Amino acid sequence: MLLDKIKTPEELRRLDISQLPELAAELRRYIIDTLSTHPGHLASSLGTVELAVALHYVFNTPDDKLVWDVGHQAYAHKILTGRGDAFPTIRTYGGLSGFPKMSESPYDAFGTGHSSTSISAALGMATASVLQGNNERNHIAVIGDGSLTGGQAFEALNNAGVSKANILVILNDNGISIDRAVGGLNLYLTKLTASRGYNRLKEQVWQRLDGNRRHSHSIRFFQRMTFTAKTALLGGSNLFESLGLRYFGPIDGHDINQLVDMLQRLKEINGPKLLHIVTTKGKGLLTAEQNPIVYHAPGKYDANTGRQLPGNDAGKPIRYQDVFGYTIVELAEKNPAIVGITPAMLTGSSLCIMKKAMPERVFDVGIAEQHAVTFAAGLAAQGMIPFCNIYSSFAQRAYDQIIHDVALQKLPVVFCLDRAGLVGDDGPTHHGVFDLAALRPIPGLTICSPLDDHELRNMMYTAQLPGHGPVVIRYPRGCSINIDWKSRFNEIKIGEGRCLKEGKDVAILSIGHPGNDALNAAQQLEQQGISTAVYDMRFLKPLDTQLLDRIAAAGFRRIITIEDGVRMGGFGEAIEEYLTEHYPSTAGNIRILAVADQFITHGSVAQLKQDCNIDVAAIIAAARE
Amino acid sequence: MLLDKIKTPEELRRLDISQLPELAAELRRYIIDTLSTHPGHLASSLGTVELAVALHYVFNTPDDKLVWDVGHQAYAHKILTGRGDAFPTIRTYGGLSGFPKMSESPYDAFGTGHSSTSISAALGMATASVLQGNNERNHIAVIGDGSLTGGQAFEALNNAGVSKANILVILNDNGISIDRAVGGLNLYLTKLTASRGYNRLKEQVWQRLDGNRRHSHSIRFFQRMTFTAKTALLGGSNLFESLGLRYFGPIDGHDINQLVDMLQRLKEINGPKLLHIVTTKGKGLLTAEQNPIVYHAPGKYDANTGRQLPGNDAGKPIRYQDVFGYTIVELAEKNPAIVGITPAMLTGSSLCIMKKAMPERVFDVGIAEQHAVTFAAGLAAQGMIPFCNIYSSFAQRAYDQIIHDVALQKLPVVFCLDRAGLVGDDGPTHHGVFDLAALRPIPGLTICSPLDDHELRNMMYTAQLPGHGPVVIRYPRGCSINIDWKSRFNEIKIGEGRCLKEGKDVAILSIGHPGNDALNAAQQLEQQGISTAVYDMRFLKPLDTQLLDRIAAAGFRRIITIEDGVRMGGFGEAIEEYLTEHYPSTAGNIRILAVADQFITHGSVAQLKQDCNIDVAAIIAAARE
Repeated sequence: MLLDKIKTPEELRRLDISQLPELAAELRRYIIDTLSTHPGHLASSLGTVELAVALHYVFNTPDDKLVWDVGHQAYAHKILTGRGDAFPTIRTYGGLSGFPKMSESPYDAFGTGHSSTSISAALGMATASVLQGNNERNHIAVIGDGSLTGGQAFEALNNAGVSKANILVILNDNGISIDRAVGGLNLYLTKLTASRGYNRLKEQVWQRLDGNRRHSHSIRFFQRMTFTAKTALLGGSNLFESLGLRYFGPIDGHDINQLVDMLQRLKEINGPKLLHIVTTKGKGLLTAEQNPIVYHAPGKYDANTGRQLPGNDAGKPIRYQDVFGYTIVELAEKNPAIVGITPAMLTGSSLCIMKKAMPERVFDVGIAEQHAVTFAAGLAAQGMIPFCNIYSSFAQRAYDQIIHDVALQKLPVVFCLDRAGLVGDDGPTHHGVFDLAALRPIPGLTICSPLDDHELRNMMYTAQLPGHGPVVIRYPRGCSINIDWKSRFNEIKIGEGRCLKEGKDVAILSIGHPGNDALNAAQQLEQQGISTAVYDMRFLKPLDTQLLDRIAAAGFRRIITIEDGVRMGGFGEAIEEYLTEHYPSTAGNIRILAVADQFITHGSVAQLKQDCNIDVAAIIAAARE
Repeated sequence: MLLDKIKTPEELRRLDISQLPELAAELRRYIIDTLSTHPGHLASSLGTVELAVALHYVFNTPDDKLVWDVGHQAYAHKILTGRGDAFPTIRTYGGLSGFPKMSESPYDAFGTGHSSTSISAALGMATASVLQGNNERNHIAVIGDGSLTGGQAFEALNNAGVSKANILVILNDNGISIDRAVGGLNLYLTKLTASRGYNRLKEQVWQRLDGNRRHSHSIRFFQRMTFTAKTALLGGSNLFESLGLRYFGPIDGHDINQLVDMLQRLKEINGPKLLHIVTTKGKGLLTAEQNPIVYHAPGKYDANTGRQLPGNDAGKPIRYQDVFGYTIVELAEKNPAIVGITPAMLTGSSLCIMKKAMPERVFDVGIAEQHAVTFAAGLAAQGMIPFCNIYSSFAQRAYDQIIHDVALQKLPVVFCLDRAGLVGDDGPTHHGVFDLAALRPIPGLTICSPLDDHELRNMMYTAQLPGHGPVVIRYPRGCSINIDWKSRFNEIKIGEGRCLKEGKDVAILSIGHPGNDALNAAQQLEQQGISTAVYDMRFLKPLDTQLLDRIAAAGFRRIITIEDGVRMGGFGEAIEEYLTEHYPSTAGNIRILAVADQFITHGSVAQLKQDCNIDVAAIIAAARE
């Protein structure tokens, strides 16, 4: 095995180029074998095996800076940079992060997780190098065609194009983001890739130039030739060259010799440039190649056949995602104003269910959260009721649009914030813990969170009734509560909480899914002789102050709040603020259970809840204290 | 006067086309005359006079939907849509808004203020029309070349290009955003405009088609011809056509006949299309044409000569903006790691002072807040200390990047949030009131706000010293406090507040500029026999809990907090939360003065502070209550 001997990129660079295909094959096998029992982002990482080998072979990492956009495709990179032995720990508590992370390795030049940041970061580093007088260092951003639809990538290209900094953007074009890529850009890339004539001429130009070095006369000849070739065959301009980047490619991203050859040549050319490579998501595992959306993160599978292993979902309650997906179809069948919007999470959000049932009323706008929200506002301004489904942590991208385009204009957009709270394995970039605190100060928003599947259905039903302004419904990743989830719709009065369980000594006030832990804790407390009431407040905004008045009047010796979000500015502080202002005597009795002021690592949700002191045991301890 | 008779676009549409130049001239004169004594956004609105006339002449507004990106160029539109008489009230309390506003007029199809939203909104409306079975309605987004650098505009174009909806994007290309436009896109547009040969052929094509209507055979011929012409002359593809929009232009945006002619033809073509018009910012007022940056919002001027009238700044303290601008140069002269970044607000932020002194260390990235922040993070990752200056309300655009790219990675970016608090005339889209509440929950941020110019200098000095993570310094628009502002630098201990004035009965706790009102109120209260202490907490995060402990121990009968931001999750609630948790007996004594849970209109800052109950009188009332 070559792979066993490669503990650093330096060792990789000592190999002969002829050994690289073998190394790539071993790497790919190791990834397939490992992830078959240690689930992770499979298909993306299989698509970049040759690229990772070629980059570390050609460039002088970690001095040369390598930024992987999103970063779930960087597994081969992790294995090649001293993390091969630890690779089976990926995405587990205390193990490797599923994304590049500066604190994990000097080879992770910049942490990622959210999309479309890599060009900005690499341009920043490249600019720093210029200012520090280093004109030799290379700065590389690897970005997928899906991530390129995110507006920030365009902002960065617009700046990179006029920069003199040494930046290489590698466009990893596989036609897939997590779902199939959408939009004009995608069609354009396909057209570009089909320009075979251009590509052939380019090859001939390359052959003439073999062996030439940076700054040489031949390079200037080469530049002229490239320009001529493009003018003749693509018409003097493509989208990237329009912005000022020199465009190279497209080339086969699985042909390691061609990749190494191309990268070595590009290393000799200063300034901003873009290399377009075409790869196959899931490359090397047939099932993944055939179904890259499912194999984006397939869970466990047979390493030989690629067949997914049955999960242990049998008998489990339905996932919140599917409750959302089926329920929006039910509502949309009756209310023709309803449309569904997702920024590239058609499958993850289960909006694909509606896409199948009524394709013309579902809009996958690509990785474009900002556009998704203002597009929804435009629809709402014309009488539609858009359900805009965005993962909680990605909705941070549209914070301004939620304020400026929706709330300020009181437009009836329904935000379904999926993956709210702690998400588990994906870690700090993906936890949806800031939403409650960040959205609460926005005037005119209704903010709620369902206890369970029935409540999610009722909140969705209520949100699409006439007369509401914008509504935010946030719910977690994963299984809900009831097997028999398909309940009849009931309107919920906006801002009305409810008592789930009466009690005398202690009151637990919850919002959303953690209310189930509150009920569990209350049962245990009753057995310990502590009479415990549970209130599902349901709404962060407006707060049910009448219910809070009754709770204050009941004279509990302890009032506990529980939420799966940050403490500062969140649900607990909102409750505490109301109670202490109106009932000063409650001031000493309140205990807020929420995520403390630090970023939370990756690991199982149960483990992280324990770490954050927001699990059943924490509630019991607060009640007994 | 034609203008006197035009109270609605319907009346405009009854004019003969030959009368339009006269109307445009009258409009331009009315804008110049009015704004000479009622300050507003002059230069942008002068550039779109002909466009506004032509759009309302050709399209059936308000049924056809017209969205003005940013919206400060929409004055002619306001005058033509029944708001001519009210125009002199623009940007004053109770008067017309400086931006389009849905609640102000049915002709304002969508409210704007922040940049780059128009295409998303218009595409939403156009999509609604398709779903509602209306294929005749037109949806128009007018967007400047500066706004087009905002990533959201690109996200929207990417979606518009594959839509079948009826959307017309008008690219108003004047080479200026507020400062001169930057980036690859700007260079590209210049190149495109220079393609005269293409343009001439296009004209001939148009002439052949004169009089043809939608869906006719001739249109198909026309389409083929256009395609052929483009293939021959521009090479089959330009940036916009790459994304799937049909591109038309460039044409002279001040030639009203050509504009009307072109718009009438475009009205007959379904689907997504972009018309590129070239205009002159400040058109018709020589001083504004010559200096469009100054005349973006020039204040008062002589309506005949265009000369700016002297402001009444003589003897006033320096503006915070200039304190920032001069101070960053002083710091950067000593610390070579410091660089300055602005998203298109080089002049507004006074970073132009540094740009002049050390041009290679200042980066105007265009209207691109997201990129600005991650670009800063990339620089910081390589050892630089970026000062990233963003207006508070625009920083909402980069909320995710502040969390994900800066705070999570503990990178030493210094955010200078300009225009924090109530900004006055620009109104609800521009008030910087959410920053404290939104940023407080982000782990690892240091958040502070200066009482005055000396403190701003000290905070900037402290933030660039080694060993800090990210620091947020927020300060208001306008004049600071001291005439003698150029104080010696003093390091401020992170998280340390200070007592500005001792007292016994009442304590006022402030953050930032409102501390000056607190001092003023305290003086008046002393005269009324109420002994009043004033504490400048300086930091929202970390809170000076030792100082709060001392304040709690001092036994004030009333503790007042004052801030120029939203109450929910802000400074006052943070103080109250700490005090009531640790000193339950304070619970009834705390009064929070902050912006209540509603959007705040436009008007003078003094008027708005009074409305929001956060002025000197409000502090005195809370102390006496």
